[in-house]
Amino acid sequence: MPASPWPTLDRAMAELRALSGVASLLQWDQETYMPPRGGAARADQVAAIQGILHDRLTAPEVLDALARAEAERPADPDRAAILRALRFDVDRAVRVPGELVRALAAAQSAAVEVWKEARAESRFDRFAPRLEELLRLRREQADAIGVPQGGERYDALLEGYEPGMRVARLEAVFARLTGWLRPVVDRLAGLPPPPDAFLRVEAPAEAQWGFTLELLGALGFDPDAGRQDRSIHPFTLAADPGDVRLTTRIFEELPLSAIFSTLHEAGHGLYEQGLPAEHRRDVLCAAPSMGIHESQSRLWENLVGRSLPFWRAFLPALARRFPGLAGVSPEAFHRAANRVERSLVRVEADEVTYNLHIVLRFELELALVRGDLAVRDLPGAWNDASGRILGIRPTDDRDGVLQDIHWAWGEFGYFPTYALGNLYAAQLFAAARRDLAGLDDEIGRGRLHPLRDWLRERVHRIGRRLDAEEIVRAATGEGLSDAAFERYVREKYGALYGVAL
Amino acid sequence: MPASPWPTLDRAMAELRALSGVASLLQWDQETYMPPRGGAARADQVAAIQGILHDRLTAPEVLDALARAEAERPADPDRAAILRALRFDVDRAVRVPGELVRALAAAQSAAVEVWKEARAESRFDRFAPRLEELLRLRREQADAIGVPQGGERYDALLEGYEPGMRVARLEAVFARLTGWLRPVVDRLAGLPPPPDAFLRVEAPAEAQWGFTLELLGALGFDPDAGRQDRSIHPFTLAADPGDVRLTTRIFEELPLSAIFSTLHEAGHGLYEQGLPAEHRRDVLCAAPSMGIHESQSRLWENLVGRSLPFWRAFLPALARRFPGLAGVSPEAFHRAANRVERSLVRVEADEVTYNLHIVLRFELELALVRGDLAVRDLPGAWNDASGRILGIRPTDDRDGVLQDIHWAWGEFGYFPTYALGNLYAAQLFAAARRDLAGLDDEIGRGRLHPLRDWLRERVHRIGRRLDAEEIVRAATGEGLSDAAFERYVREKYGALYGVAL
Repeated sequence: MPASPWPTLDRAMAELRALSGVASLLQWDQETYMPPRGGAARADQVAAIQGILHDRLTAPEVLDALARAEAERPADPDRAAILRALRFDVDRAVRVPGELVRALAAAQSAAVEVWKEARAESRFDRFAPRLEELLRLRREQADAIGVPQGGERYDALLEGYEPGMRVARLEAVFARLTGWLRPVVDRLAGLPPPPDAFLRVEAPAEAQWGFTLELLGALGFDPDAGRQDRSIHPFTLAADPGDVRLTTRIFEELPLSAIFSTLHEAGHGLYEQGLPAEHRRDVLCAAPSMGIHESQSRLWENLVGRSLPFWRAFLPALARRFPGLAGVSPEAFHRAANRVERSLVRVEADEVTYNLHIVLRFELELALVRGDLAVRDLPGAWNDASGRILGIRPTDDRDGVLQDIHWAWGEFGYFPTYALGNLYAAQLFAAARRDLAGLDDEIGRGRLHPLRDWLRERVHRIGRRLDAEEIVRAATGEGLSDAAFERYVREKYGALYGVAL
Repeated sequence: MPASPWPTLDRAMAELRALSGVASLLQWDQETYMPPRGGAARADQVAAIQGILHDRLTAPEVLDALARAEAERPADPDRAAILRALRFDVDRAVRVPGELVRALAAAQSAAVEVWKEARAESRFDRFAPRLEELLRLRREQADAIGVPQGGERYDALLEGYEPGMRVARLEAVFARLTGWLRPVVDRLAGLPPPPDAFLRVEAPAEAQWGFTLELLGALGFDPDAGRQDRSIHPFTLAADPGDVRLTTRIFEELPLSAIFSTLHEAGHGLYEQGLPAEHRRDVLCAAPSMGIHESQSRLWENLVGRSLPFWRAFLPALARRFPGLAGVSPEAFHRAANRVERSLVRVEADEVTYNLHIVLRFELELALVRGDLAVRDLPGAWNDASGRILGIRPTDDRDGVLQDIHWAWGEFGYFPTYALGNLYAAQLFAAARRDLAGLDDEIGRGRLHPLRDWLRERVHRIGRRLDAEEIVRAATGEGLSDAAFERYVREKYGALYGVAL
């Protein structure tokens, strides 16, 4: 009898898991505590770890053990799920030459540095050569991977963030979404905005920090299994369900930014802490897609964090820290925190206009990858699309085509997952309200654990046993759809603005 | 013509360097910011990196390229030095089976956790089985490495910390040292101690922290190339000359502890920042031994930091932060910071008695490794040796045999380097005073950069081009000797206590 392939697979997966945890920690450290002159060594460290990860994932003994394990068709459902997930990872990795992996890593590091300077000077022409290089390498990578079933070149990249999703499906979903969303935005943006002068309170950083920690406690983020730090751009990185790192950012004059970035990252963090720890050494202890990950952050940030019940519960605690808010009603606060307005910058957009920003990026990056748009024509195309989709044109590249870091990382195919996250979030929250009687009242009393426990059971603990849409279908009864999001927007903003939407 | 072996060596060394930088960062993070439940994943991560480091260092293509490069006998002195250092590392690694490396790593992680509990309960019997296991594995490792020329089994371990050093030499050095040091300790400990009640000032953590940062600035520690954080046990870890992490610890009622731990770690940190950055991707950008590293920390902590000129310069700044010190003269402060007393605990020992603590540990661990002492008899042997060498017997194991973490890490052979550091520090400082006219006056004016620059030139920038004793000989004109330390102790403490020593 030949030896079981599983010891080889288990050992390889444990090492891969350890090394990706290391990669996460290196990135976390780089954005939080690394001294300025540590960058050169850090680039070497990240490249070394990425190279070893690629080598290990594509090692002959792993490929062999995987094929043998598949041939055995394990009856255990978790083992079958492990083989599916590992096969997916291996197949993508093995097709991309190590040379290209290293070339991409180098091009990304270089492009991000140039992007920072180009953005500061609002000069796209300085960034353009780097973007062209990245686009070329990413198209090369897509061609190495090959067109996924029923797809096109862009789908090979999209598949790296949202397995199973396709351009054709996204275009249909986004067309429907834009169809009803544009008129809603036009309507709301034309109404007098809710007053929000009281938000311009003096907001000492320490008081903001204290309140964000209070929120983390209320959400049930386990401080023994994670931490929050400050960084320029908020993010979440996890090395393990027992080691989840969130960051937030604090502006001295605006507490909302820190609050909503903490709620957003805490949504990611609760997901990571809730992943199936019994699979911490294999491939199942991870989210199946970026879209489902984003659904958790947007659910807590928007569906919960921008709701009236939430502020009924938490405004008194906020006002204790910021006496300037004394006397503001939860209703007034809720309206102020939900102003809808045409905006140039995605990360500052309200939840109604936000998806239009994504539609804009998807349209442009798809054209770039398809070869229908040249990098040199990108700024003009951006500004035109902005006018057409958002109803507002940027006056410079800093607030236009240079605003996001994603393309400087070569992350073509990533943006659509943000919109998918918004749609999934609305679907999941609607299902939670259906399943949990009195959920709004619970939230209104500051009791957030029933919702968290529901998400833990229905989403977090599944890990990669199911793909994103399967998780959503199992939890809500339907696959990807913008219907729940549409109902949510029309009801919430109709009531908020006192109009029929 | 066969291809040059250097591209292979350069690539391998760059990766090794990156991976050991990663290992340092993982350890730093573990002691500073890692959440409590991150430990399990961290153990996996450290084991993965250590395993890969061992594999890479002993890879056939590295061994082959190294042999070919050696056969070419490079004329370039740096290349020749690289080959010597790499050969040393490879030879030690290649003799130890990967299985033993992994078994040691696992035994260390387990033993440290048990030691923590055993120490808290002051129960050596709980720790004994783990210590026996570690001792067994380390003896096995020593036997795998083989007895170095002119040495014995213990020397194979010692060689990992202090290349070239041997038991026979240490015994001679320590015998001479103890010969004059014991009478000095007996004399000083019998005199009335200098008053130090004024040191029990209220010392808010923030004010202590601020002062330690001020000291780092005065020493010329580059904040763009490093940082200081807090941890339970102070330490220094560096990933690169551009990324050096110090920690300190702060007790609310005792500012001296934070001050001297910062000065100590800053000495290590200046060394790391001053290593030859042009060799950051090869084996020369490192200290040749732990003893020479410790010479830098002890030089700044004791020779500078516990000197009268230093406190002439810095006491006013300290008193500004701690008004309780107003009116204390530099002379009085200097005397209080240099009390000599018999003590049980090494890390709290003054610089005169400190080396006796090392002699005690060396004697016992040598007996353990030789097989002349059984682990079960260690507590009794410790207490007896303590009475004989230190003139004081512990009343429990917590302040006795369980006080240090080193043996729980299996670090037999490490302790002697602390005493070597003290001797080298005195030799180097004496040479700096000889070379730098008016050094004491400079220090008395708070100008520390002449000394730092001298050390940078004579020690830091050499990296591993020379071994520890060669560095000291080149800088001072003589090899390892306790003569400078003896002169320093007799002069300083004779003056301080007003006696002829």
